[in-house]
Amino acid sequence: MELVIGDKLYSTWSLRPWLVLKRCGADFTETVVRLNRPDTAEQIALHSPAGRVPILKVDGETIWDSLAISLWCAERYPEARLWPADAHARWQARSVVCEMHSGFMALRTECGMAPDHSMVGPDRCPPPKGEDTAADIRRLVQIFGEARARFGVSGPYLYGEWSIADAFFTPVAARFRHFQIDLTAHGDTDGAARAYVDTLLAQPDFIAWGEDALANAA
Amino acid sequence: MELVIGDKLYSTWSLRPWLVLKRCGADFTETVVRLNRPDTAEQIALHSPAGRVPILKVDGETIWDSLAISLWCAERYPEARLWPADAHARWQARSVVCEMHSGFMALRTECGMAPDHSMVGPDRCPPPKGEDTAADIRRLVQIFGEARARFGVSGPYLYGEWSIADAFFTPVAARFRHFQIDLTAHGDTDGAARAYVDTLLAQPDFIAWGEDALANAA
Repeated sequence: MELVIGDKLYSTWSLRPWLVLKRCGADFTETVVRLNRPDTAEQIALHSPAGRVPILKVDGETIWDSLAISLWCAERYPEARLWPADAHARWQARSVVCEMHSGFMALRTECGMAPDHSMVGPDRCPPPKGEDTAADIRRLVQIFGEARARFGVSGPYLYGEWSIADAFFTPVAARFRHFQIDLTAHGDTDGAARAYVDTLLAQPDFIAWGEDALANAA
Repeated sequence: MELVIGDKLYSTWSLRPWLVLKRCGADFTETVVRLNRPDTAEQIALHSPAGRVPILKVDGETIWDSLAISLWCAERYPEARLWPADAHARWQARSVVCEMHSGFMALRTECGMAPDHSMVGPDRCPPPKGEDTAADIRRLVQIFGEARARFGVSGPYLYGEWSIADAFFTPVAARFRHFQIDLTAHGDTDGAARAYVDTLLAQPDFIAWGEDALANAA
């Protein structure tokens, strides 16, 4: 099994299925395609016609898209319980994962990850100023607060136990840290969103990803 | 069970889970929120904090996002076989559905659906001219051609039998028709993509949706 990913410093889409595969205990190799280079498109095209990372190669098949790979993992590794066991939590988890998958364009654009704005490392940036970005942040704070209040009894992750939702929001946590976003100013009145973000940033798998990203930075 | 949707004339996101629910034989009511009106956001907020249609209300829960609702259907109605039974077809179907869910922004923007550009009805528009839109169309033609060549033996839909992938590409078929897009000029050398698009446009559920859209147009 081979996972083709972008630079670990800033490929937010690649981090998500990588975290999911780690959680499954999957035995996979990593192939890194350097992004933002003249031959990036050509290099990705060697692996997938969709032209985007991440890509999973397994059983002679090419599976692309971070969510499709996560769904494959949920099918292949049921014992990893990648979706919450509670039905209501599971439906909510899929809703927020899909909302993340297709939305939050303002945040992604204004707080984009690139060599100067990496997911890891000590460098920090001034907070964003856009109105749409602020609305995206308020919505994320709302998602985090509601899920934690409703489903957080069984653990520190969004729905208690770790799920695909946590993989999908880990890059958000990294953006919040790098861009020094004040969650209290975006509706996090009880600190639940802040605590959840800190939980994501403290995941051992994410810390390992970050160390590897810094060690291999070009 | 209640499905909250946007105007049937142009809410492409609403059409998708509506087709899936129909395929399941689900017994649901429809609540239509008029889009592009001063009180649209307010009306949607009555149903969901995510601020977007479609929204499914079931078992006391609010499930939003077209893909999350489709995943809920696949879980609730296994007998509807909403994903292909063949494992490789299933993984491919999820890849293209997720690619559609998060991508094709140029096509969506330049060939957007709105009162003047509806999914149904006799009006037609000149084809788009953007380079990025052309690339999106070529990619869709490639997806359609490859899936049909590889998995199309058992039926006329993308993976043979009808699946969630067909729900996700039906609005694309409607865009191709409304904007009079020449698929041959975008790589459909054997006509497989054209034939598939025609299959989608001929779905009885989609025709029923269109008739209702025209009957209730403001």
